Amino acid sequence: MKVITIALGGNALGNTPEEQLKQIEKAVPSLVDLITQGHKIILTHGNGPQVGMIYKAFEYASSNTDKICRFDLQECTAMSQGYIGYHLQQGIKKELRRLGMPWHVSTVISQVEVDPEDPSFRDPSKPIGDFYSEAEAAAIMRSHPGQIFKEDAGRGWRRVVASPKPVFIVEQDSILNLLDHKFIIITCGGGGIPVVRDAQGDYRGISAVIDKDFTAAMLADLVEANYLFILTNVERVSINYGKENEREIGEMTLAEARRYAEEGQFSPGSMLPKINAAIRFVESGSNRKAVITSLEKAHLAMSGKVGTLIKE
Amino acid sequence: MKVITIALGGNALGNTPEEQLKQIEKAVPSLVDLITQGHKIILTHGNGPQVGMIYKAFEYASSNTDKICRFDLQECTAMSQGYIGYHLQQGIKKELRRLGMPWHVSTVISQVEVDPEDPSFRDPSKPIGDFYSEAEAAAIMRSHPGQIFKEDAGRGWRRVVASPKPVFIVEQDSILNLLDHKFIIITCGGGGIPVVRDAQGDYRGISAVIDKDFTAAMLADLVEANYLFILTNVERVSINYGKENEREIGEMTLAEARRYAEEGQFSPGSMLPKINAAIRFVESGSNRKAVITSLEKAHLAMSGKVGTLIKE
Repeated sequence: MKVITIALGGNALGNTPEEQLKQIEKAVPSLVDLITQGHKIILTHGNGPQVGMIYKAFEYASSNTDKICRFDLQECTAMSQGYIGYHLQQGIKKELRRLGMPWHVSTVISQVEVDPEDPSFRDPSKPIGDFYSEAEAAAIMRSHPGQIFKEDAGRGWRRVVASPKPVFIVEQDSILNLLDHKFIIITCGGGGIPVVRDAQGDYRGISAVIDKDFTAAMLADLVEANYLFILTNVERVSINYGKENEREIGEMTLAEARRYAEEGQFSPGSMLPKINAAIRFVESGSNRKAVITSLEKAHLAMSGKVGTLIKE
Repeated sequence: MKVITIALGGNALGNTPEEQLKQIEKAVPSLVDLITQGHKIILTHGNGPQVGMIYKAFEYASSNTDKICRFDLQECTAMSQGYIGYHLQQGIKKELRRLGMPWHVSTVISQVEVDPEDPSFRDPSKPIGDFYSEAEAAAIMRSHPGQIFKEDAGRGWRRVVASPKPVFIVEQDSILNLLDHKFIIITCGGGGIPVVRDAQGDYRGISAVIDKDFTAAMLADLVEANYLFILTNVERVSINYGKENEREIGEMTLAEARRYAEEGQFSPGSMLPKINAAIRFVESGSNRKAVITSLEKAHLAMSGKVGTLIKE
C-alpha cells in the first residue's frame, strides 16, 4: 500500500457551485479508484477562484451597504474550506456507496502557521479583490490599517497581500489520528487558514494567501506519503508550451525539473508552483515521487499511462 | 464522567468576525472548565446571523454585478460551519494550551438529511435575505425556479424557505469515531447542511434551514449524552417575561415545560425552539437532562448555581 497525497487545483474546481459539483463528479471515480487499487489517500485542494469569489462578495456588499461587514482572508479561507469540503465529501461518499466501501470522509478545517517575519510580508504582492480608484483605495487604507493597496498596471488600485510559506499545520494531530482510523481526509484547503503564533504560543488569524502547493508538499511529508499527486487541467506537463516544438514530459528527474524551471519553461502563475511543490516533496525524503496530471486521470498515473512523474 | 452536548446560540456569537472572536473568548473558559470537571463535551452551534450575512453578501453582490454568482443556503451553511468552526477551534485550543491539556479540537463539516416530504416544504415560511419589489421578486422566481418569494407584512417581498426537521446526521460515524479518540468536536453547525437522499441513496443539497435545536437534540441522542446544554444570552429561562410578575425558573419538569410552552410563555423565534429541543432530548431516554443558560456560565450549571434545568 502506498500513501498518496492528492492536491486538487482550485481552478480545476470551476467558478460556481454547479460547476464545482460537476467537476468533482468527474474527478471522484478516479480518486476512489486509487483506494480500490489498495492505496491510502489524503486530499487537499486549492481555492483561488472560490476564496476570490467569497472575498469579493463581502467586499462588494460591504462597500455598498452598511448592513454587511467586510470579511478578511482568514475567515474567507475558512468559509472556502467548508464550501469545497462539503462538495468533496458528498461526491466521494456517493462513489464509496456505489462501490459498497465503508470508509468515512471527513473535512478537517485547518489552520496553517506562517512566520510573521516571512519576507513576503515586507513586500506583499499578491493582488486580491476588486479594482478601486486611488481615492477609494486611500480611504480603505485609512479605515483599515494594515490593508495595502497598489496600483495595478494602469487598471486601478487593488489590495495586495503576502503569500508566505507554511511553517506548521496546526491541526496535524487531528489529521494523523484520523488517517490511522480509515478516514478519507480533506484538509489544508487553499493552503490552510493563515495564522501566526504569539509569544504565549496562541494562534490568531492573519490576512495572507499561503503558498498552497508548499502546504500540499508539507502535508504529504507529514503523512509520510510515497506520492504527491497534483491534479489540474492538463494530463501532462509540457516544455516549449504553445510553441511548434512543444513536447509533453512523461517523466523527469529532480535535476531536469530544476533545469526546466530555471529556463523559464513553466508559467509562474500556474505550472511553476506545482513543479516547485513536486521538487520540494521529492527532495524531502528518499523514494518519494510526485505526479502532475488531470483530475479525471489520476487513477491511471500509478501505471505510468498518463501524467508527468517527477522523481529523484 | 458525563457526556455533555453543548449548543451555542448563533445570536450569542455576534454579528462580525471581531464580535464572534470576542464572544468565543468569553465562552471558552466555561466550556473547557466542564472538561476539567471530568466531563466529555461535544459542541454544536447556531448560525442564524452568520449564514444570513453570507447569503445576503452573495445575494447583494450577484444582483448588482455579474462577476459574482448566487450561492444557495446549503453552500452558505457549509461556509458558516467553516467560519464559525475555525474561530471556535482556535479559541478552545488557546484555553487548552493555557491549561496544558493535550486534547485535539476538530470541526466536522456535516450534512444533515431532511425528508423532502417534510410538511414545511409544502408551505415554506422562514424568511431569508433582503427585501425586493414585487417585480424584482417575480424576476428572480422566473430565473431561479424553486425559489419562492412572499410579501412580508407590507415591507416588501422576501424569499421564504422551508425549516424541516432533521432525520439523519450523515457524518455520524465520523463524529462517533472522533469522540472515541479524545477529540473535542464541533459539528452540525446551523443544524447541518441540508441534504435529501435520492432513490439510489445518494445525498444532494437542498435549500432549507434545518431546525437547529432539533439537530442539537438529535446529536445529543447520537452521542448518548447525559446533558444537553443550550447556551444563549440569558442565565435562566423566565416566565411572564417582561411583565411585573416575571420569574426566573431554576428547574422544571417535562410536564411543567410543556404546560408553559402551551401557555405561550416562550417567544417562538428564540426561547420556544430551545425549550422544545430540551423537551425532545429529555424525553428521548431515561435520566437525560437539559440546561438552558448563558455562554459564560455553563461551568456553573452542573452545580445548579445558574441555568434552568429541565428534567423528567
